[in-house]
Amino acid sequence: MRILLVGAGGVGNAIAKIAARRTFFELMVVSDYDLARAEATIDWIESKHGSQDGRFIAAQIDASNPDDVTRVALEHGATHVMNAVEPKFVPTIFAGALAAGADYLDMAMSLSEPHPTNPHSETGVKLGDDQFAQAPDWETAGRLALVGMGVEPGLSDVFARYAADHLFNEIDELGTRDGANLVVRDEAGNEIFAPSFSIWTTIEECLNPPVVWEKDRGWYTTAPFSEPEIFHFPEGIGPVECVNVEHEEVLLMPRWVDAKRVTFKYGLGDEFIGILKTLNQLGLDRTDPVRVRSADGPVMVAPRDVVAAGLPDPATLGPRMTGKTCAGLWVTGLGKDNNPREVYLYHVSDNEWTMAEYESQCVVWQTALNPVIALELLAAGTWSGRGVLGPEAFDAEPFLELMARPEADGGYGQAWGLEDRLNEH
Amino acid sequence: MRILLVGAGGVGNAIAKIAARRTFFELMVVSDYDLARAEATIDWIESKHGSQDGRFIAAQIDASNPDDVTRVALEHGATHVMNAVEPKFVPTIFAGALAAGADYLDMAMSLSEPHPTNPHSETGVKLGDDQFAQAPDWETAGRLALVGMGVEPGLSDVFARYAADHLFNEIDELGTRDGANLVVRDEAGNEIFAPSFSIWTTIEECLNPPVVWEKDRGWYTTAPFSEPEIFHFPEGIGPVECVNVEHEEVLLMPRWVDAKRVTFKYGLGDEFIGILKTLNQLGLDRTDPVRVRSADGPVMVAPRDVVAAGLPDPATLGPRMTGKTCAGLWVTGLGKDNNPREVYLYHVSDNEWTMAEYESQCVVWQTALNPVIALELLAAGTWSGRGVLGPEAFDAEPFLELMARPEADGGYGQAWGLEDRLNEH
Repeated sequence: MRILLVGAGGVGNAIAKIAARRTFFELMVVSDYDLARAEATIDWIESKHGSQDGRFIAAQIDASNPDDVTRVALEHGATHVMNAVEPKFVPTIFAGALAAGADYLDMAMSLSEPHPTNPHSETGVKLGDDQFAQAPDWETAGRLALVGMGVEPGLSDVFARYAADHLFNEIDELGTRDGANLVVRDEAGNEIFAPSFSIWTTIEECLNPPVVWEKDRGWYTTAPFSEPEIFHFPEGIGPVECVNVEHEEVLLMPRWVDAKRVTFKYGLGDEFIGILKTLNQLGLDRTDPVRVRSADGPVMVAPRDVVAAGLPDPATLGPRMTGKTCAGLWVTGLGKDNNPREVYLYHVSDNEWTMAEYESQCVVWQTALNPVIALELLAAGTWSGRGVLGPEAFDAEPFLELMARPEADGGYGQAWGLEDRLNEH
Repeated sequence: MRILLVGAGGVGNAIAKIAARRTFFELMVVSDYDLARAEATIDWIESKHGSQDGRFIAAQIDASNPDDVTRVALEHGATHVMNAVEPKFVPTIFAGALAAGADYLDMAMSLSEPHPTNPHSETGVKLGDDQFAQAPDWETAGRLALVGMGVEPGLSDVFARYAADHLFNEIDELGTRDGANLVVRDEAGNEIFAPSFSIWTTIEECLNPPVVWEKDRGWYTTAPFSEPEIFHFPEGIGPVECVNVEHEEVLLMPRWVDAKRVTFKYGLGDEFIGILKTLNQLGLDRTDPVRVRSADGPVMVAPRDVVAAGLPDPATLGPRMTGKTCAGLWVTGLGKDNNPREVYLYHVSDNEWTMAEYESQCVVWQTALNPVIALELLAAGTWSGRGVLGPEAFDAEPFLELMARPEADGGYGQAWGLEDRLNEH
């Protein structure tokens, strides 16, 4: 397996670091628009693990240009293109990988566009629609695009397949629930506002109309921040207010897993919801450029890019952050004994541990873990397929087994949890 | 009197329109960086009042360049320079007017800089400090700079002098209190967020540490949004939550009026306070440029300029706005009979009326009214002075009389109110 990793930002950097402890691949080309960033990732790996003898190579890439993605992939004989940049670059990397004859993985799907007249009830262009529309091309070429293979989407979708195969006869709801108790402090020890994930992506997810799937209705949308609920997260995180958010799981799970309802709720918390509402109210979430004065005369900038430029890079927050983040799937229905069952399948990532082991903050590290496991399963032939497929299209058991198996035994040493919850309610 | 009006934005435009009904001046040069904006103001005046026979002239000006201000002032033989642009241009217009040998008026004073180490308790550079430091130059030149002559500061300061001369023997507090019940709607009739005054200035006022003056302590600062109180505004506006805000009155009134305490509280309301806090939290109030990507490569823009660029121009909100705005001064102390007295002196501006009469929204119109009255008193010689003076330095009675006198009798027809409040508490 020869991997072209596109993007050495927070998640890309962590993917390379996690992969550095594994032996399943022959080459990983760490590429970035900023070559120095790719080189810094490889320098860290070699300082930690010694010389890699050319197993990691840095390259410059323009992810917005499919031809450039194809060029770099062909130059290094890439068999797999791993997309680790913002979702706005999905179309170009997706096209560039196919043209290079490589398989493709990403952690977020092509972007949605709201319904032109009824954005808060009907879907317009859905997340991933552009990619699924190209599935025939991938099938014809005999290539695989494994889409949505981060933690959420990604691990959550693996949990959905696992629940359907091993825990339930009938599923009422597949509800991804994400929450954390992370706190970021400044040098003086005061709590500061600093999102732990790309603000660009967070705005996109949270301000787009959330999508819900119901078996007898199909996909539909609601107003942002709808259906707030308090969800109790494990391992000391505790209760967090969660609201509906547009997310890939809702588009992926119903394609492969039988359920009556599929939702995604994100534990944003009051403060963050207030901030996102304000950004929207002021038009600062906009991605179309506005004309702004500058010392060099008027310039055109997207307000959302200005918001992102003013915040600390999430990848740099690790040393100032404390707490844990939890990704998981809440499932209700009839268990294998046909009695009502309610479970929460989850994985918790602790910032103290990810910083000590990887110098990577826990949210980006948790995202990065899952595509590396998936690549390893693909390299081994345990997972295989063609066309545009979500994580649910593959057997969940080998994934979860490899993930949980101790490192000493060749696994990733990342335990996941299953809480039976019916008696709590 | 030959007036050079610098700025044909919301307030400048309204100044010209209000002046057009008066005969006290020989010439008003309406100047703007954007010549077309100045011309549009004059076109409106001529379409409403007929040809002005050259009494109004449009000119292009660069307010950031003192030499250009001097050039335009000299070219038209200006006797008075009326500054109607953002306060960041105070230093250049102030210097340009003096160099041209003209008198000068503004509605906001030179900007403050927070104390470098104790910003929430000690003052650094105060509002107007730069201007007052140049007072000897103005005195030597025999020229007058009448600073802070809008509505707040401006009319509020006139009220302070009036209270000291005519209502009180001893003043405990001079508390400017500003509140409104304005609502802006979009085409569909939904309420939208759209500040009725320059967001640039509003951010500056509200996020800088508020300044308070006490006789036995001098000027000191607090944290933003301090000392919230519910203040009851007249004429149907009702109760509004007001908080301390940095404002010129606190710097002006103690220089000429004897009082134990001087404060300024602005009726921002919960929603606006939340928005301002968020802008601050995200660093979007910053005026130093940040590096932002754009289609033409990285550019440097000030986040606050981006916030302003994304909001509707306050001057354009009039047709979509309903409600009233109230500017006034709450005064407590011992009345002329040496008994405790508490009064609120105020002026209310109703958007429906200002739109019908002037096609100008009420907040900018109310600001614009007062410097025109002041110019008329200066033209008549009723007010005169040299050096850098605030409105309190002049007799308040002729101002308030001319303001309230019916238009049919040569006044401005703008009643102001006095509420005795002691018995309400």
